[in-house]
Amino acid sequence: MEFLSGLKEKDTWELSQLTGEKIGSTVKVNGAVHAVRDMGTVAFVILRKREGLIQCVYEEGTARFALKDVREAATVEVTGRLEASEKAKGGIEIRMEAIRILSMPAASLPLAISKWKLNTSLEAKLNYRSVSLRNVRERAKFQIQEGLVRGFREFLYQQGFTEIHTPKIGAKGAEGGSNLFRLDYFHRPAVLAQSPQFYKQMMVGVFDRVFETGPVFRAEKHNTKRHLNEYTSLDFEMGYIDGFEDVMAMETGFLQFAMDFLRENYKSPLQILEVSLPETNRIPAVRFDEIKEKVAAKYGRKIKNPFDLEPEEELLIGQYAKEEWKSDFVFVTHYPSKKRPFYAMDDPEDDRFTLSFDLLFRGLEVTTGGQRIHDYTMLIEKLKKRGMSEEGMEQYLDTFKHGMPPHGGLGIGMERLAMQLLGEENVRETTLFPRDLSRLEP
Amino acid sequence: MEFLSGLKEKDTWELSQLTGEKIGSTVKVNGAVHAVRDMGTVAFVILRKREGLIQCVYEEGTARFALKDVREAATVEVTGRLEASEKAKGGIEIRMEAIRILSMPAASLPLAISKWKLNTSLEAKLNYRSVSLRNVRERAKFQIQEGLVRGFREFLYQQGFTEIHTPKIGAKGAEGGSNLFRLDYFHRPAVLAQSPQFYKQMMVGVFDRVFETGPVFRAEKHNTKRHLNEYTSLDFEMGYIDGFEDVMAMETGFLQFAMDFLRENYKSPLQILEVSLPETNRIPAVRFDEIKEKVAAKYGRKIKNPFDLEPEEELLIGQYAKEEWKSDFVFVTHYPSKKRPFYAMDDPEDDRFTLSFDLLFRGLEVTTGGQRIHDYTMLIEKLKKRGMSEEGMEQYLDTFKHGMPPHGGLGIGMERLAMQLLGEENVRETTLFPRDLSRLEP
Repeated sequence: MEFLSGLKEKDTWELSQLTGEKIGSTVKVNGAVHAVRDMGTVAFVILRKREGLIQCVYEEGTARFALKDVREAATVEVTGRLEASEKAKGGIEIRMEAIRILSMPAASLPLAISKWKLNTSLEAKLNYRSVSLRNVRERAKFQIQEGLVRGFREFLYQQGFTEIHTPKIGAKGAEGGSNLFRLDYFHRPAVLAQSPQFYKQMMVGVFDRVFETGPVFRAEKHNTKRHLNEYTSLDFEMGYIDGFEDVMAMETGFLQFAMDFLRENYKSPLQILEVSLPETNRIPAVRFDEIKEKVAAKYGRKIKNPFDLEPEEELLIGQYAKEEWKSDFVFVTHYPSKKRPFYAMDDPEDDRFTLSFDLLFRGLEVTTGGQRIHDYTMLIEKLKKRGMSEEGMEQYLDTFKHGMPPHGGLGIGMERLAMQLLGEENVRETTLFPRDLSRLEP
Repeated sequence: MEFLSGLKEKDTWELSQLTGEKIGSTVKVNGAVHAVRDMGTVAFVILRKREGLIQCVYEEGTARFALKDVREAATVEVTGRLEASEKAKGGIEIRMEAIRILSMPAASLPLAISKWKLNTSLEAKLNYRSVSLRNVRERAKFQIQEGLVRGFREFLYQQGFTEIHTPKIGAKGAEGGSNLFRLDYFHRPAVLAQSPQFYKQMMVGVFDRVFETGPVFRAEKHNTKRHLNEYTSLDFEMGYIDGFEDVMAMETGFLQFAMDFLRENYKSPLQILEVSLPETNRIPAVRFDEIKEKVAAKYGRKIKNPFDLEPEEELLIGQYAKEEWKSDFVFVTHYPSKKRPFYAMDDPEDDRFTLSFDLLFRGLEVTTGGQRIHDYTMLIEKLKKRGMSEEGMEQYLDTFKHGMPPHGGLGIGMERLAMQLLGEENVRETTLFPRDLSRLEP
């Protein structure tokens, strides 16, 4: 029988606590043995902690233990004198006196994680995910990813959005169609949510503005560098909009906030990966049909299909935006209606197009959004026009029967956003545990 | 062709912006028509906005439109004079001059949402979810739920945790057994994650401390007031612990932080629901076998099974903690080994029990946590002892082969935590869109 009264103070220090003030004093630090470099008369034991690496110096006489007891990948608690060092990272190092072994590995590491750049294939990185991410650069990618998600939420809380948690198992997909994972739900057919679309719209009538950060599932048989079968979607939906421009303005606001947020709170991983954050103060928005023509003219390309964008065209639009408007981002607006789901609001001036947009970041689509139909009659007509059934969507449709404000929203592919920000070639590089056609483990 | 430069200023006001300063000036406010109360000479039109309700006064002469045009559940934009009013909520009201109808409902509401207490069955509330939550009290539950999740993240960021996003589709469940939803993943058998357990442990070796807030799936055939088949789990896992007491201390710290966070940032929904926040400064922790005996003695109950806790026993433990220790919370420690998954660390002093705990909140389990096995050999032996196969867990097990610090963690059922905080009788009351044996929609 005891009582818990809250956080316990520890006698071990984190890196950010080991400042100049403590120079000369005895400190205790725990961590994983990242590398051991035996130079003969002295040895360096590099400890990996969540905030970075710290160098510990081993010298016989000072250290009251044998160097051979310190094994790579062991976790330890080191006691020693904190000293200033010009050569060590961060300007400090620990002269080791005592060590307590917390755990020992049972096998040697399959990857040379202590190298600055992890020199191995993507396949190996993914197969040994829990080891490869111990590399400081690999790990930094996911610290930046955290910053993006955190920035998204922080910005939207400030803008009066309410966070929601919607079910991933449901009776019907939001976009319909064949890209759904199917499962048996207590002897009833069910699907995994390909987006929280229906739910976030339903909740706009309750909270006016809502967002969700969660997994979505797409049973697409694509095997490309930019597709995943499960990813994290940053979704929001906002009511009382004057048009889909309000949604683009909100996303621009988010990007501005997120870049500042990273700059302020994620200095270390940005430095480690040498990331240069993109400008976000002025993002061009251009019509789908217009930019297709511009790109065709500038790069001498034939327009094969006026109602579709090929990946190569997206790349060229990115190039065009960079060259002509000095922007890494470009909103492409007024997507063709047949490329958008039934709930997209058609342009009243030309219903072959919608009041919607994609955001391209350095030539890759990272967001799809737009205004939605909020009028019940219009929604039912659109369903009919498409030959779709109302089955499994009754409660979604009823929401509109009972009144909904004009609204719109978007979904951002979190891993893609991180991929483009970090200049990666494959979205799996910025996915913690990717799921694709061939990968279901780890 | 245009440029987006960030957030656009609107000429409509939110409730918190309508302060005393603006009294007497003309304001524009949008919202949903929550209720229309026609008193003969004057009428009151109550608008629902995300921050609450605002009363608008309709008088012929002042208003340049007909009252009959204002329909319940329409969304509108009202222009009028802001006036002080002793009777109106918040001390202000708007004398209506003009109205712009943004949308009209196609049918009347199935529930009387404008009543203070929504007088209907749980079934009806869930069937008409997008309508029932428009009731101000129903909605407030989910605002408080947001505060709990937000407080969880905010606290853990401060404590050096990294947020992760782990896959929900996988090859094998963390706890094994029969409670898994199964699906076909491109012609391979797959399951939905019943917890992020394996992944968060794997990531402790990378980030030292990690957390995730996401959905988990349990194909349990329970049909009770406290079980869901999909829920939001607040999970964390921390390395370099001295014992599972560190995990309980961290949870106590979270609860303290969260209650303060709610008190500061969620005043309005707390008031609406008249929530009294529980004390968290001193949470008792008592052994499983000990509390069973205490409860049996105090309430004259026979111990049927010394290795199991029945729901009624949990209730009595809650009562005991309240009566004897004046606490709404109680940690029950040292759960029997056979009731815990293979990765739980057995108590070296008596391996029939584990170094683990549940947290009961007002007599209901809201958290399961404990220390995990971090030694590879010990883990493999435990698997063998249980007759379990390593299949599908290779990469999880390899993580331990390559060194892991002593660690532990927990999972909190978010909906249950909210349920107990709000004094609800059924967990579905605090679940946005519940999934249970009979409910797959909406």
